Amino acid sequence: MAHIQVPEGVPGIRSLVLFRPETGQSLYDLAQVLLRGESPLTAAERELIAAYVSSRNDCHFCMSSHAAAARSLYGDRRQLVDDVLTDLQQAPVSNKLRSLLQIAGKVQILGKLVTEEDVAEARAQGVTDRELHDTVLIAAAFSMFNRYVDGLASWTPTDPAVYDEMGKRMAEKGYSLPQPVK
Amino acid sequence: MAHIQVPEGVPGIRSLVLFRPETGQSLYDLAQVLLRGESPLTAAERELIAAYVSSRNDCHFCMSSHAAAARSLYGDRRQLVDDVLTDLQQAPVSNKLRSLLQIAGKVQILGKLVTEEDVAEARAQGVTDRELHDTVLIAAAFSMFNRYVDGLASWTPTDPAVYDEMGKRMAEKGYSLPQPVK
Repeated sequence: MAHIQVPEGVPGIRSLVLFRPETGQSLYDLAQVLLRGESPLTAAERELIAAYVSSRNDCHFCMSSHAAAARSLYGDRRQLVDDVLTDLQQAPVSNKLRSLLQIAGKVQILGKLVTEEDVAEARAQGVTDRELHDTVLIAAAFSMFNRYVDGLASWTPTDPAVYDEMGKRMAEKGYSLPQPVK
Repeated sequence: MAHIQVPEGVPGIRSLVLFRPETGQSLYDLAQVLLRGESPLTAAERELIAAYVSSRNDCHFCMSSHAAAARSLYGDRRQLVDDVLTDLQQAPVSNKLRSLLQIAGKVQILGKLVTEEDVAEARAQGVTDRELHDTVLIAAAFSMFNRYVDGLASWTPTDPAVYDEMGKRMAEKGYSLPQPVK
């Protein structure tokens, strides 16, 4: 049961933004522009970074839903998502994406851990300012979403089929504030 | 020097949102509604929670600026801010605010650390759903802002007078997206 009285049967962050739509609006706006807005990173790559950070923060709801969104967006290459979540070093991703995921992993621990050397290594793989910026902000933002969702103990479904459905919807429709439960 | 090319001489998060105003807008909207919007917590209390979490995340820019904003808002009781940042257990705050700061400290580490017992203790001090919600979201949001600011190594002034000025402005004017540097 959640630590505060939220609408019953509504999972994760959706229940929390229904509790307080004023902050919810900014949170959904951020998710939409960050994960679906114009970026040199594909939506699939951005969802993968979100799932990777959520996995490292042990946030089952965010990890499962964003991994499902990433699988849906990667299509035929969907196995990549589970490969990254299982073992980033062995996963068949480009060295460029691996360097960004490594930086995201450092941001997940603490911002200051990102060193000049990490950035130089990413630059050597062709990473641009915008790619670096978006990666750091996605990792930072999910360090927030994960804490919001788990810090208030919002409902976390356990059935993987629920997340498949959710991920498909997130991939297709993006992020907009849910409507009040009638 | 920041890891990406941001406007020179602009400190902290302001330089980053000038780099990407599209995400910056949602970030400032969130700060404004969360720290200045309607809440059972005073603006001073909310700035104190923000400074406390930023201090625990070792983010000098966010800690110094939000501590300065909290001092400005607390007025005659400004010493409270430094007392909390030095030693929460000994600080002369109400047991209610202390229980909220303790929960914020847990969220700073990881959302799941907030237990039923923590919440029961806060409830015994009269904490409401909205107070708990706002505290958790402030702690979560600063776990993002701190990582964004430090993960991209944005410029962190060292002169305390700069933060006094900044804090006064934040206390008086709140949060709106900075205008582009001419």
